[in-house]
Amino acid sequence: MDKKHPRVIDCTIRDGGLMNKWQFDLETVRRVYRANIRAGVDIMEIGYRVSPKLFGRDDFGPWRFCAEEDILSVTGGDKPQLQLAVMADIGRCYQEDFIPKTDSVVDIYRLAFYAHQIDETIRMSAYLNGLGYKTFFNIMAVSTNPLDMVINCLKRIEEETDAVGVYLADTFGSFIPSRVSELIAFYQSHCPSKAIGFHGHNNTQMALANSLAAVEMGIEYVDASYYGMGRGAGNTPIELLLPALGGNKYDIAPIIEVIQKDFEPMSRIYKWGYHIPYAITGICNQHPKSAIELMQSEQRGCYKEFYQRTSVGV
Amino acid sequence: MDKKHPRVIDCTIRDGGLMNKWQFDLETVRRVYRANIRAGVDIMEIGYRVSPKLFGRDDFGPWRFCAEEDILSVTGGDKPQLQLAVMADIGRCYQEDFIPKTDSVVDIYRLAFYAHQIDETIRMSAYLNGLGYKTFFNIMAVSTNPLDMVINCLKRIEEETDAVGVYLADTFGSFIPSRVSELIAFYQSHCPSKAIGFHGHNNTQMALANSLAAVEMGIEYVDASYYGMGRGAGNTPIELLLPALGGNKYDIAPIIEVIQKDFEPMSRIYKWGYHIPYAITGICNQHPKSAIELMQSEQRGCYKEFYQRTSVGV
Repeated sequence: MDKKHPRVIDCTIRDGGLMNKWQFDLETVRRVYRANIRAGVDIMEIGYRVSPKLFGRDDFGPWRFCAEEDILSVTGGDKPQLQLAVMADIGRCYQEDFIPKTDSVVDIYRLAFYAHQIDETIRMSAYLNGLGYKTFFNIMAVSTNPLDMVINCLKRIEEETDAVGVYLADTFGSFIPSRVSELIAFYQSHCPSKAIGFHGHNNTQMALANSLAAVEMGIEYVDASYYGMGRGAGNTPIELLLPALGGNKYDIAPIIEVIQKDFEPMSRIYKWGYHIPYAITGICNQHPKSAIELMQSEQRGCYKEFYQRTSVGV
Repeated sequence: MDKKHPRVIDCTIRDGGLMNKWQFDLETVRRVYRANIRAGVDIMEIGYRVSPKLFGRDDFGPWRFCAEEDILSVTGGDKPQLQLAVMADIGRCYQEDFIPKTDSVVDIYRLAFYAHQIDETIRMSAYLNGLGYKTFFNIMAVSTNPLDMVINCLKRIEEETDAVGVYLADTFGSFIPSRVSELIAFYQSHCPSKAIGFHGHNNTQMALANSLAAVEMGIEYVDASYYGMGRGAGNTPIELLLPALGGNKYDIAPIIEVIQKDFEPMSRIYKWGYHIPYAITGICNQHPKSAIELMQSEQRGCYKEFYQRTSVGV
């Protein structure tokens, strides 16, 4: 896999924040930032941009909002030594929440949206491009949409936007490599001028294998996180992805060190990773929401009943 | 993947026993046996056959020895409703340790051996075939042998034995799907009359993906275990493999129930599955022994130093 090197986006703080309400210690975020630089990671996604008018700062940590001064407290005053991305949740932020690129250390906004929000997302992308940022379109829950709705989205992104790329996400963690290859080819055919990215989920332990299948298809961006931290079963573990990409571009030693100090201890509290309820929703091609609710309830060990409920009609 | 259906061998008690010295509760083994029958699992490997002259029954549970009366305590008096396999460790058992098939409920002996033990293994296979059993050749640590030594083994199995099949095992947990496909093709070309099987390890979370790559190549046997229980990072989880094989042949509901009752609780004690030390030996293509020793020591959390030691020269 040495020749086709996609750029790796570390989304630990953004996606992992779904498990701890973005309440990471500042020192943890700094350690991830510095380790990414030393490891050779291409891009770090440091959090979400949602409007503080819609969500309380008392309920959530700073990486749900990504105020410029919070980002600067991580990067210091200097120009960041890797590209910084922030995910903007369409419908949960306004144009007033963004400052011009010349005043910001952020390079990329990734726009997370459902297919029915395509108009609003195209407008936001144009606005952010006008401010000087690169943008990506991250369509969520794509497998629940009718095919013509997805095609319409992809065509409009191709024809009406200056976005850098479009992401395929395995929202339910139900893909296998052959399906990923088909879907990447589908995205490539409808968005020939855009870079394609892939975000895997690990419900059935296929996030890495699916990511490598997408890389074989020639995608240009791929997501991963420290120790796989992310909602539910989590994401592609970056410590496995970087060596699997081959070559000498990356060094996982700094990442291993931060996993030891921060993420392995956190995993014992927040319990992302392989658990039977997440596997069940993946096997049954359903949103992991019900599994996450189960894991947070006193019925977390009742796998049998959960499987019976979830597999009805599958 | 509906059309190419390999036979699935559940090796939970045999391989999982490496974590608990085969000291399973009898009721646990009975539940696995009954769940396998209800789930439609083809073959259950119930333990190892080693000589009680070499290993003490005080130190190990009954599934390291698989005495006929212990197996009967699981199956009851009736003919087992699925095929039963036992793994015989070449060099750790004698011909006197086996009774004729007509007096036994065991159907299959899988012979685990290193390439240099090929003569002894061929003799044992012929002896067991003479007693009425089917045999498999399971070559261990094949990636550490010179190629001509492996070819010699495979040729002799093809030409000199009546064994049913030959197994490829990812001993170090370092394979990726494309490598598995290559190796399966290699085994198939040198043993055209034998069934080929695959045993995955999960160090880099690739056991399922690798198993599916092997199935795509047309293998006839594939190993898996409940909740992936096995040495170190463990094996392909059977609850993920069976649905991924497609079709309606299997029902994982009984397996989910036994995982809930027995294996999820055991996993908290014995800690197989994804852990950074096992990932490191997989990434570095080394035997998991050093990772297992680390996990059993007070340095289990010292990932950084372990990575530095293990990655030297890689």
